[in-house]
Amino acid sequence: MIIADPRPLLAHQCVRFEDGLSLDCGVELRELTVAYRTYGRLNRDRTNAVLVCHALTGDQYVAETHPLTGKPGWWDAVVGPGKPVDTERFFVIAANVLGGCMGSTGPLSIRDDQRPESGRTLPWGTDFPPVTIRDMVRAQKRLIERLGIARLFSVLGGSMGGMQVLEWAALYPDCVFSAVPIAAAAYHTAQNIAFHEVGRQAIFADPDWEGGRYWEHGKVPARGLAVARMAAHITYLSEQALTRKFGRRLRSGPSLTLFDDLFEVESYLRHQGSTFVSRFDANSYLSITRAMDFFDLAAEHGGDLAHAFAGSRTRFCVISFSSDWLFPTAQSRAIARALNRAAANVSFVEVESDKGHDAFLLDEPAFHRTLSGFLSGSAAAAGL
Amino acid sequence: MIIADPRPLLAHQCVRFEDGLSLDCGVELRELTVAYRTYGRLNRDRTNAVLVCHALTGDQYVAETHPLTGKPGWWDAVVGPGKPVDTERFFVIAANVLGGCMGSTGPLSIRDDQRPESGRTLPWGTDFPPVTIRDMVRAQKRLIERLGIARLFSVLGGSMGGMQVLEWAALYPDCVFSAVPIAAAAYHTAQNIAFHEVGRQAIFADPDWEGGRYWEHGKVPARGLAVARMAAHITYLSEQALTRKFGRRLRSGPSLTLFDDLFEVESYLRHQGSTFVSRFDANSYLSITRAMDFFDLAAEHGGDLAHAFAGSRTRFCVISFSSDWLFPTAQSRAIARALNRAAANVSFVEVESDKGHDAFLLDEPAFHRTLSGFLSGSAAAAGL
Repeated sequence: MIIADPRPLLAHQCVRFEDGLSLDCGVELRELTVAYRTYGRLNRDRTNAVLVCHALTGDQYVAETHPLTGKPGWWDAVVGPGKPVDTERFFVIAANVLGGCMGSTGPLSIRDDQRPESGRTLPWGTDFPPVTIRDMVRAQKRLIERLGIARLFSVLGGSMGGMQVLEWAALYPDCVFSAVPIAAAAYHTAQNIAFHEVGRQAIFADPDWEGGRYWEHGKVPARGLAVARMAAHITYLSEQALTRKFGRRLRSGPSLTLFDDLFEVESYLRHQGSTFVSRFDANSYLSITRAMDFFDLAAEHGGDLAHAFAGSRTRFCVISFSSDWLFPTAQSRAIARALNRAAANVSFVEVESDKGHDAFLLDEPAFHRTLSGFLSGSAAAAGL
Repeated sequence: MIIADPRPLLAHQCVRFEDGLSLDCGVELRELTVAYRTYGRLNRDRTNAVLVCHALTGDQYVAETHPLTGKPGWWDAVVGPGKPVDTERFFVIAANVLGGCMGSTGPLSIRDDQRPESGRTLPWGTDFPPVTIRDMVRAQKRLIERLGIARLFSVLGGSMGGMQVLEWAALYPDCVFSAVPIAAAAYHTAQNIAFHEVGRQAIFADPDWEGGRYWEHGKVPARGLAVARMAAHITYLSEQALTRKFGRRLRSGPSLTLFDDLFEVESYLRHQGSTFVSRFDANSYLSITRAMDFFDLAAEHGGDLAHAFAGSRTRFCVISFSSDWLFPTAQSRAIARALNRAAANVSFVEVESDKGHDAFLLDEPAFHRTLSGFLSGSAAAAGL
């Protein structure tokens, strides 16, 4: 018996595209499934659709209870009635990315290159073809078309979600009225790649990794994946935030120990690692981190980021956070400058925050006001 | 057969103290060995001794070919004839820290709490008692006494070496004429602890960890230790340095791959990880990272760092590097301020560098000039 996914079986809302998808790597996926969720109502003119793109470990459960964790959606503070992305006004769509593990085609999907008569139904696992941010966006475009939407009022997202926003604006400029890349970058730096590589090596080092075929053995490389998550999680926060939350507070008395949690920050990190494992697939983690590492929008356009946005009529709002050291403000400023060089309509806001990269997920009023104001202004301009 | 240390057997120069050492944790080590090296000559008055304290993964081989790696000593650029720490002028001493794995008492040492008549010679391994930075300094003090030196002309070191410098000045103020903490901090922050914890969890996750008794099985948790080193190594550099050295350069063609090194920075990190394993012991790594995490000099002195230096007549030179985000300038400035509050003799220099925390190990002329100038001035003041 093959256990492809040890997590509880979930029936995700999804659409299936029988004609598959051509990937940047040259592989033709024969079958494409996109799992998605929507919030609010599409108006009669189909002009109020907002696509929310998720980050590395996010998914389509943006503004509702997550089916695996039972926790609120990851952008519950931002998307909903009366919230910055107001679902009484906008029709919000969120799709699990290609390569993901929440229902969209990815390493957990049954591979499509086997003859059906063989009766074998093996998941892709590590053989899942490498995907790019552009491939993810192409898959989302298919979903948007299927939903009967020719043009999105807005595309927005943070971190890897912001990479998708940039790619949407570059690839389908006429389909994007407004775009909000948040805590994003037009390419992954050497340091970003290095942190991802640490996570990948931690997964490879896990005895239950089994060369990536852990699903065949009913195993999960839980410890390696947890270490990967722990390392990544530090980069999502800031020194200030960690100091404010934990400082050097000890869990118990000041006795030295090698194995147990000594400091509260250690317990917190271990908890982050262990809970992540119960909701995420290791091969998916590898697939998506690689897609981020490979992202370099300027390189896709002759080496000049401005070329990616040449002639664009999209209205941009580029948002960064002052304490984000993973995708620092300088990266967002470079995007804004490229948009300026392309004579695009762009505003750029650095939100003061000590919460680090994760600020886009947290209760950050100045960020919410910025988002709300930009969407309202753009809605007026769009005649919504 | 018990293989305590799979590295080539080395005969380190060392002294043995039959009366052991009382540790902060309450354990009495019955036997203390301190492995050390010296460079230059002690003058007749025994007043020209300089103690160099090493960082987490350093050792006593400061200014000569390393016996395991065959590479130059880790501070070859700084210590030697005519160099900033001039061995034609100073008698330089460097000891492997307590808890280390290059000859000083540590997890690889044969445990001292077994009856000799049992004939068992088991190494401490994970049962090695937890040590503190203060314990390390106490062990060094014993060495200095054995060498017949009552007062050190200077104590200097970077990173964890700088922590030892601060502890020396606080614990033995009358034995330290001058002190140079470099790229150091008076305590480990929550973020520092978090990065160490990722490394420890990576080691624990290794199948060859064997609950810390890997030496009994002739194994080494090489993959986990390599991941720990990789994660730590990123924190020693800076985004600028990584970008300058590697940027997004690909190893081969721009083909996506999950397993192979795709970017040069990945190969570099993997190399850092794998070479580290051949020269360092995992239990030592745990022991020393814990000592760093536990370091909080102000907490040892009623919560006020200035109290640690009350009445000190030591001349201090506090040095930081502008791009160091592991032990940032703010930490060094806090040390300088505490020294000012204690009315100590202190100068503080932030060296402009884009090389990150590791700048203290690298060819950084402005740093070398600062060090050289301070030591010359102090030597004149000391009548050397």
